[in-house]
Amino acid sequence: MPDGSATTTEQALLDRGAMGHRDVADSLEPRPGRSLDAAALRRQFLDARSCTERLAEPLSAEDAAAQSMPDASPTKWHLAHTTWFFETFVLSPLPGYRQYDPSFSLLFNSYYESLGARLPRPCRGLVTRPSLDVVIAYRRAVTLAVASWLETSGAARPDALAAVELGIHHEQQHQELILTDIKHLLSHHPCFPAYHSPLPRGSADEAPPLASPASGGGSARYTKYDGGLVSLGHRGGGFAFDNESPEHRVFVRPFALGAQLVTNGEYLEFIADGGYRRPELWLSDGFHWVAAHDAAAPLYWQLGADGSRQLFTLSGLMPLDLAEPVCHVSYYEADAYARWAAARLPTEAEWEHAARTLPLDGNFLDSGCLHPRAARRTEDTQTFGDTWEWTASAYAPYPGFRALPGALGEYNGKFMCNQMVLRGGSCATPREHVRASYRNFFPPPARWQFTGIRLAKDA
Amino acid sequence: MPDGSATTTEQALLDRGAMGHRDVADSLEPRPGRSLDAAALRRQFLDARSCTERLAEPLSAEDAAAQSMPDASPTKWHLAHTTWFFETFVLSPLPGYRQYDPSFSLLFNSYYESLGARLPRPCRGLVTRPSLDVVIAYRRAVTLAVASWLETSGAARPDALAAVELGIHHEQQHQELILTDIKHLLSHHPCFPAYHSPLPRGSADEAPPLASPASGGGSARYTKYDGGLVSLGHRGGGFAFDNESPEHRVFVRPFALGAQLVTNGEYLEFIADGGYRRPELWLSDGFHWVAAHDAAAPLYWQLGADGSRQLFTLSGLMPLDLAEPVCHVSYYEADAYARWAAARLPTEAEWEHAARTLPLDGNFLDSGCLHPRAARRTEDTQTFGDTWEWTASAYAPYPGFRALPGALGEYNGKFMCNQMVLRGGSCATPREHVRASYRNFFPPPARWQFTGIRLAKDA
Amino acid sequence: MPDGSATTTEQALLDRGAMGHRDVADSLEPRPGRSLDAAALRRQFLDARSCTERLAEPLSAEDAAAQSMPDASPTKWHLAHTTWFFETFVLSPLPGYRQYDPSFSLLFNSYYESLGARLPRPCRGLVTRPSLDVVIAYRRAVTLAVASWLETSGAARPDALAAVELGIHHEQQHQELILTDIKHLLSHHPCFPAYHSPLPRGSADEAPPLASPASGGGSARYTKYDGGLVSLGHRGGGFAFDNESPEHRVFVRPFALGAQLVTNGEYLEFIADGGYRRPELWLSDGFHWVAAHDAAAPLYWQLGADGSRQLFTLSGLMPLDLAEPVCHVSYYEADAYARWAAARLPTEAEWEHAARTLPLDGNFLDSGCLHPRAARRTEDTQTFGDTWEWTASAYAPYPGFRALPGALGEYNGKFMCNQMVLRGGSCATPREHVRASYRNFFPPPARWQFTGIRLAKDA
Amino acid sequence: MPDGSATTTEQALLDRGAMGHRDVADSLEPRPGRSLDAAALRRQFLDARSCTERLAEPLSAEDAAAQSMPDASPTKWHLAHTTWFFETFVLSPLPGYRQYDPSFSLLFNSYYESLGARLPRPCRGLVTRPSLDVVIAYRRAVTLAVASWLETSGAARPDALAAVELGIHHEQQHQELILTDIKHLLSHHPCFPAYHSPLPRGSADEAPPLASPASGGGSARYTKYDGGLVSLGHRGGGFAFDNESPEHRVFVRPFALGAQLVTNGEYLEFIADGGYRRPELWLSDGFHWVAAHDAAAPLYWQLGADGSRQLFTLSGLMPLDLAEPVCHVSYYEADAYARWAAARLPTEAEWEHAARTLPLDGNFLDSGCLHPRAARRTEDTQTFGDTWEWTASAYAPYPGFRALPGALGEYNGKFMCNQMVLRGGSCATPREHVRASYRNFFPPPARWQFTGIRLAKDA
Repeated sequence: MPDGSATTTEQALLDRGAMGHRDVADSLEPRPGRSLDAAALRRQFLDARSCTERLAEPLSAEDAAAQSMPDASPTKWHLAHTTWFFETFVLSPLPGYRQYDPSFSLLFNSYYESLGARLPRPCRGLVTRPSLDVVIAYRRAVTLAVASWLETSGAARPDALAAVELGIHHEQQHQELILTDIKHLLSHHPCFPAYHSPLPRGSADEAPPLASPASGGGSARYTKYDGGLVSLGHRGGGFAFDNESPEHRVFVRPFALGAQLVTNGEYLEFIADGGYRRPELWLSDGFHWVAAHDAAAPLYWQLGADGSRQLFTLSGLMPLDLAEPVCHVSYYEADAYARWAAARLPTEAEWEHAARTLPLDGNFLDSGCLHPRAARRTEDTQTFGDTWEWTASAYAPYPGFRALPGALGEYNGKFMCNQMVLRGGSCATPREHVRASYRNFFPPPARWQFTGIRLAKDA
Repeated sequence: MPDGSATTTEQALLDRGAMGHRDVADSLEPRPGRSLDAAALRRQFLDARSCTERLAEPLSAEDAAAQSMPDASPTKWHLAHTTWFFETFVLSPLPGYRQYDPSFSLLFNSYYESLGARLPRPCRGLVTRPSLDVVIAYRRAVTLAVASWLETSGAARPDALAAVELGIHHEQQHQELILTDIKHLLSHHPCFPAYHSPLPRGSADEAPPLASPASGGGSARYTKYDGGLVSLGHRGGGFAFDNESPEHRVFVRPFALGAQLVTNGEYLEFIADGGYRRPELWLSDGFHWVAAHDAAAPLYWQLGADGSRQLFTLSGLMPLDLAEPVCHVSYYEADAYARWAAARLPTEAEWEHAARTLPLDGNFLDSGCLHPRAARRTEDTQTFGDTWEWTASAYAPYPGFRALPGALGEYNGKFMCNQMVLRGGSCATPREHVRASYRNFFPPPARWQFTGIRLAKDA
Repeated sequence: MPDGSATTTEQALLDRGAMGHRDVADSLEPRPGRSLDAAALRRQFLDARSCTERLAEPLSAEDAAAQSMPDASPTKWHLAHTTWFFETFVLSPLPGYRQYDPSFSLLFNSYYESLGARLPRPCRGLVTRPSLDVVIAYRRAVTLAVASWLETSGAARPDALAAVELGIHHEQQHQELILTDIKHLLSHHPCFPAYHSPLPRGSADEAPPLASPASGGGSARYTKYDGGLVSLGHRGGGFAFDNESPEHRVFVRPFALGAQLVTNGEYLEFIADGGYRRPELWLSDGFHWVAAHDAAAPLYWQLGADGSRQLFTLSGLMPLDLAEPVCHVSYYEADAYARWAAARLPTEAEWEHAARTLPLDGNFLDSGCLHPRAARRTEDTQTFGDTWEWTASAYAPYPGFRALPGALGEYNGKFMCNQMVLRGGSCATPREHVRASYRNFFPPPARWQFTGIRLAKDA
Repeated sequence: MPDGSATTTEQALLDRGAMGHRDVADSLEPRPGRSLDAAALRRQFLDARSCTERLAEPLSAEDAAAQSMPDASPTKWHLAHTTWFFETFVLSPLPGYRQYDPSFSLLFNSYYESLGARLPRPCRGLVTRPSLDVVIAYRRAVTLAVASWLETSGAARPDALAAVELGIHHEQQHQELILTDIKHLLSHHPCFPAYHSPLPRGSADEAPPLASPASGGGSARYTKYDGGLVSLGHRGGGFAFDNESPEHRVFVRPFALGAQLVTNGEYLEFIADGGYRRPELWLSDGFHWVAAHDAAAPLYWQLGADGSRQLFTLSGLMPLDLAEPVCHVSYYEADAYARWAAARLPTEAEWEHAARTLPLDGNFLDSGCLHPRAARRTEDTQTFGDTWEWTASAYAPYPGFRALPGALGEYNGKFMCNQMVLRGGSCATPREHVRASYRNFFPPPARWQFTGIRLAKDA
């Protein structure tokens, strides 16, 4: 693929002005040297589209329409927005293409400041029209059109293939958000309804979970690393977002990482030890956050005055399993727990250095469990999947990071302030979506994502 | 009907503790001496139930589920809550009755403090389950059970008939709220969708609307009244809420009332005269409200920079008709307009004294127009229907008003603070629901009801 | 005094545009027929001016400069604002008068919307300059100039005398505010400092306070009144604000008023009976207020976990005296207490009808006690002084009330919304300032004034 | 000084629990190997104490008592708090010492969570007592006692000398805060009063300021650096806070730094180019900050509709000097300006690497100007003094940073979240206080400190 063509694709994107908060395109960095196979991409595309629809299947029209907080979006909006993305960046540039419905750009564009009138994010739950079935019809029409184009003309237009690849990764991000957002919504229902049927937490052919000792599980065991001048960032080959580039060197001291994720049982000890009431364990902002939210446990925990311990999950209320990784904690909680445990959180350089050599394996969306699982074997590091892991690193541009020219440049690095980096993916992340160099980021108080804790220490 | 039986009904209500904000039962005053006909009541009951359902017909499941602000409720909630009311106060006391779904009390009880856990009002839009079809099935089951009971056993239980009558008036209040709440919701959609098809604003057999003169329409003509020691309050005969009682005497000076409602055309003059920018025209709280909300026109008006004037209605955006009554104004706006017009708002004693002798006729919900209409004839006073009329009277107990004993007493007078009385019903009020002594009330800043302006003067 | 001259004074006021929130001039109603004696007025003027200064004497420059909340003003501001009032309305119109400091109008004008730039009310504590000694010099200069003018030329200018009279009543209002505002400020100091030396609560030559029975003190005894068509409003003779006029007739049912104010001991029973936790006793807005403020006792009470009961007063912390009238309660608390006591609050018509025949006697600012006192004799009605008494009447214009023309009309009735009327004056009100027809008003949640409770019942 | 003695001092500090927000002790890292000379320290101590008092001299009691926002403290509080620090950590441990006033600990302790009751930070302006003269007497008594002790017994107690040294640096931090806080307060006064007399912006013996070209001043010239594995952090010798340690290696790419600070003239071009209205120039949080604060210029700028350009300074309103460094910008503004200028902000590693070899020279508090000055010569880098320089680095612990044990450990790193690092000191920083490794930190929206902009680029 010649450089020129790539520029044409970029230009198409620039001219239309796409993009939105946490959208793939925030950090698009097309690499002209990569060559994409239209047929393979078509299969990935159809897989991604149908995966999204399967996630929406258990939901009624009302479930799919409600918005529980400004940071979360209705499922119907996710379904439509990801479709709008393909329509805008793949179909619309094709000669003769006619928009499915001109009002959809206003309704389903996420965050493009220059486009003028746009629905305020907190009002997405008030857009009752189009209804769910209209949105599903819209999805089908766009999926069909893109798939046909890929089959017939895709190979001849490598530039547009890059937009399809981008759209697939964008769609995967929204798959995870559908799950975290619907979980947040259902948690507000007084009856705590389930999103899907309860799954057995371990299947017959698996080893039983590791026993959680009264004090100190796998997270109290540490693996040592030498440090030195290590490499950080995407090393090329396969898709990556621009915030993962360029690959660069960082000088790292010797360090050690917790061999497994911190468990519910371990986190309960922190609570029992007065963790939420001891200012010396918290960042100043964190202790104010505790006071302002009356925080006393992770999100979705229900600790009864009678000693009962339950957890709201996508399968409804479940007993708290002490061996499972603790989840839905804020950065403040992760940081305070680490201080209590006489440890600290890893930097992203430490985390990535350790993860680069590990197989990309774990409990992802694909397992269908949609819940973090207890470690089965002492050697399970839980590095990928289960829960995103808060790092001690503020989200910042890598040295040499360059904003793209034009409209896409409007958004590069736009969120690189007041956010912390998370690594490793979760039980709601599609396996194909994540990699060792992948950088997720959220503000310190965020808890509705599947966020957990890995400890670190100086070695 | 002996007094004793009536007391039993009351007791049933008291024991269960019903009621909620702005519910009929806030001001329930059963009058033992009235005798109710079971067959007639059954007809009214079925009419009221099917009227409510017809109002919900144009709405999708999503339309019926969303909540645009804490003060407004989803249609689905109104459909379920009015049903819960009949189930709780008519069916539940019957021997052997089994609740349709025990969780519905938690979800659809409105405002009973003592009942413990109850869904916070602002979260009604997050209750995505049960879905709309389940709520409709619930309605049908309860309607059928009540109708059967009325047919077979109602005559023998005059006490329970009072509860049915109460439930009908309660249902009528929620019919109006369905319309005002869905209008508020749809007004947030960027495409301003219609609730129902546009209606011709005047039908062929009607006179054309009165021309609206450049300055001073019908509201500038005044009708004089002598005043003196007049009667105020419900004089008995037919249903009334307790806040309309007791009938009592008030000494009133000679006064004059505007012959018709203030029109859009007249209100435009106020705007053109800088009305919203002149502090001397406003109450102190009112001018702060203007500043805090950047208010420059009634709710739902769209005044374009190009001079265009549109109005959002239940039929979507329409050109502003200068002859129609101005609507969706706050008390502050009504008061400021009156001061600008060298007039004042009527007290509720003045209003009721004038209305007592007028026929209960006007543009109500029953007309199907769902929009205030321009006066057709010079003698149309528009006293009933079209718009609620803000009075200068704070909502307060009538002298001798007595709180009921027990749980119902919890709510009597509960809202008699920081609210102003409105009179006359609107185009969204069922004709059967209103009367000369009827007292509606809202806080001064409220605008989403169909609220308009009648002027008054000392004579 | 001919009408014409009076109009000239009014005109002077109008042209300059004075006035502010709760200022005398809000409700100025000069009555041309009254004749004012320049020499007597000069004595009153000098008394009022020196009284204000005596109130400021115990305060340091810092005490006099701080502002504890937007509703309260620094003493220094009160000292300067009342001076600015005389300078603006008496001295400035005199030929050749030169403003003391042109910046003072910007700093010490209270609330005139049309004057343009004006210091926002919540920022009064940030105006550190001029310093206190400069303000005191300003006071002296203006006092001297006004007194000289009254001596030499006052008799010849009856119109300006009306402005002086107005300024005296204005100054008296601010005397009370100095005390309530400094009390509020000092209550925020962790050491609870005193404003003045503790006073003996009863002097030697007085009877001891009435014993407060375990249940039901003087407020449980009631005095009956016949009602009928009674007169309300200022009957002429002496100064009155315009909101007291016109005198008019009101039809009142037979009623009874509590013979004395509700005591701390009685209010403690309400608390002990769970008063603050029982929603059935409260207005809906009131119970929300309780929740939002975690209210559990009147302002300035300190109820220790160990059973200790203290009260912050202008003499510092004192043991709670059960026989004293309860004070610093909101309208919501007064209303809830009355409901708990199976009574209600009086209307202002009832209160004034009863008060008209009583001597204007009581525990006022003049006693120097600055704290409500326990009743000494069974026949002490405590109608005047001790505490302002919340009425059940919303603050509204009397029938026939007319706004003044011009700038003063900007403010007439401006506060007649969302406020309740209080009657009778308090221990911080100058005796000369109050009368049976005097209407004070505050929003329902206000507690920092000396506000108490008198019960009423239907007879 | 043996290790043991040092530990004793630490222990004294730990036992008493000192410290507060941004206090020296937040980051105390006593280095036992350093030896302190009692006589020299006594001179520094007396200098620091009298410097603070000179800063308060132009202020009245009211000026010194007011608090303009929660982040700023009254001068009186600064005067007392720094005194309390010496009393608590130097005098109180001495045998027989008796506290000056036991209530002062409650009033003047800054931020020690474990100490129980403590004045909330936003209420410091309400502590009207003790008055300013009492605080000044308190200062004198403590200064005298410390100085006497240093003279007679200091040499024998090296441990306590460390506490004195700490107190001096603590006092210097508060000297800067006195100036920034009083500037913020005076800026709220409608008359914009001066803190001190206007100073000539350049003295006779100095070169005139460099002309500011229409486009691109000294900040558009860049100095290149090679990068590589550089050292960061305090290298030992002299006092440093613990957040400057340990010294460590960082791998840095080649880079270039702006040769001078960005000027007002250059910043005006950014404004004229629509800088505040172009979302593509801003971080997402930054553009929300612009909208929420209606930001259109740096703090203290006054741009008139008539083209006038003024600046509020500690000498009152002054014409905007285009050659002076832009000051009082938030991190968001600095970042947006850099993006507009096709540059970026430096990291703290880049900044410190460049600063390490430069002389510690510049426009500090000691010059008495109290305002950033225009560069006089092309070679003036303005690295130290004039304005703090925002870096692109989030405030985080250096690798190997260790929290102190015990109470002081409560605060180590406590603020290392949601803040950005600033470097170089300002015109309000005492020259003795700053060094190349010094790390200041504020949240991105903060503007009331003397904060400016130096650009950086990849080389």
